[in-house]
Amino acid sequence: MTSFNTNERDVLHRILRARRDIRHFRHDSVPEEVLTRMLEAAHYAPSVGFKQPWNYILIRSLDVRRRIKSLFEEANQEELAKLSGDERSDLYKSLKLEGIMEAPLNLAVTCDRDRDAPFHLGQGQMPEMDLYSTCLAVQNLWLAARVEGVGVGWVSIIDPEKTAKILELPNHIQLVAYLCVGYPIEFKDRPMLEEAGWKSRLSLSNLVFEDRWGHSPK
Amino acid sequence: MTSFNTNERDVLHRILRARRDIRHFRHDSVPEEVLTRMLEAAHYAPSVGFKQPWNYILIRSLDVRRRIKSLFEEANQEELAKLSGDERSDLYKSLKLEGIMEAPLNLAVTCDRDRDAPFHLGQGQMPEMDLYSTCLAVQNLWLAARVEGVGVGWVSIIDPEKTAKILELPNHIQLVAYLCVGYPIEFKDRPMLEEAGWKSRLSLSNLVFEDRWGHSPK
Repeated sequence: MTSFNTNERDVLHRILRARRDIRHFRHDSVPEEVLTRMLEAAHYAPSVGFKQPWNYILIRSLDVRRRIKSLFEEANQEELAKLSGDERSDLYKSLKLEGIMEAPLNLAVTCDRDRDAPFHLGQGQMPEMDLYSTCLAVQNLWLAARVEGVGVGWVSIIDPEKTAKILELPNHIQLVAYLCVGYPIEFKDRPMLEEAGWKSRLSLSNLVFEDRWGHSPK
Repeated sequence: MTSFNTNERDVLHRILRARRDIRHFRHDSVPEEVLTRMLEAAHYAPSVGFKQPWNYILIRSLDVRRRIKSLFEEANQEELAKLSGDERSDLYKSLKLEGIMEAPLNLAVTCDRDRDAPFHLGQGQMPEMDLYSTCLAVQNLWLAARVEGVGVGWVSIIDPEKTAKILELPNHIQLVAYLCVGYPIEFKDRPMLEEAGWKSRLSLSNLVFEDRWGHSPK
């Protein structure tokens, strides 16, 4: 039975804390063996009913990426319009929220809602569990990337239906994550949104309750 | 800028592969400092708009756990009924799918759908992103537990509305994960559902496409 020592524990915590959401990429490509290790890490994520509902679409085509990028621009204009009159409007405009064209690789992570149909173990009461499993795979991939010095940025400001059309996803395949992948210009010490003054890190102790909502631990 | 060597890379991959979904627990409690490191790991997960939408409810009360356990029993009967006439019915019945009463600690991880309202950065097109962020925190916690020798089991066979009522969650707080936490009887080499013959590990190479759905990488 594998066990880990305190040194190995500290390695994990250093990786967790050094991980960033990356939007500024160098153009050099990620070696195949590095990419393989990242995908293997994702594939070892937990999944409801051991369903492994995920697929990975490696997007290198400039044409596909250009079309996704224009979805981002369209959606980001809509978002900016929501901040009209809000003092954060200029700050929002200054944020770089994707690296679709600069990153050497884009990666769509999808969830097959029909995998193992018709009986979905563990999903009778929580049908979204397969989507959640797919998220766990994304986090494994993100950490495996970080330890290789590879950056990952999650782009959520795109219309998922239009993205699905561009990627030719069948109806039962749901886009969970659209990621930009590549070597970053740098890994900053703090999240970009914290550095930019958008939002601070919350105090963990305020977020922990005991036995029911709102009751602080003794 | 923190970088990691190949030894540290291998530590991460060993942790990822040694993590299991645990249902058989010893009764001894998890020390406070271990639990704190697990929660800190979760708190360093990525989140959309740096929203940190999560809360953690530590459930030690036997009464609360008994009520959750009866939700499981109710839901599990419904699941079993779906397999009536299916050859996997007996196998399903033999699976241990939770450790609510045996584990010294239960942990509900929730998502505050109103945090940072009304402007939800990065959620205009994908409103579920805050739920996904909460899942990433769960995976960080799961890995931080594993490196301490602590087991985590995700229980999804419970009605989330009834669970929310027991935990007194306000309407804007959504249950994402109900976890059992404690030292496991053992960490098996393979997932329990694989060992039991429910499902095999898929071949990763069949799950990877290039540029669009269904196209194998060159």
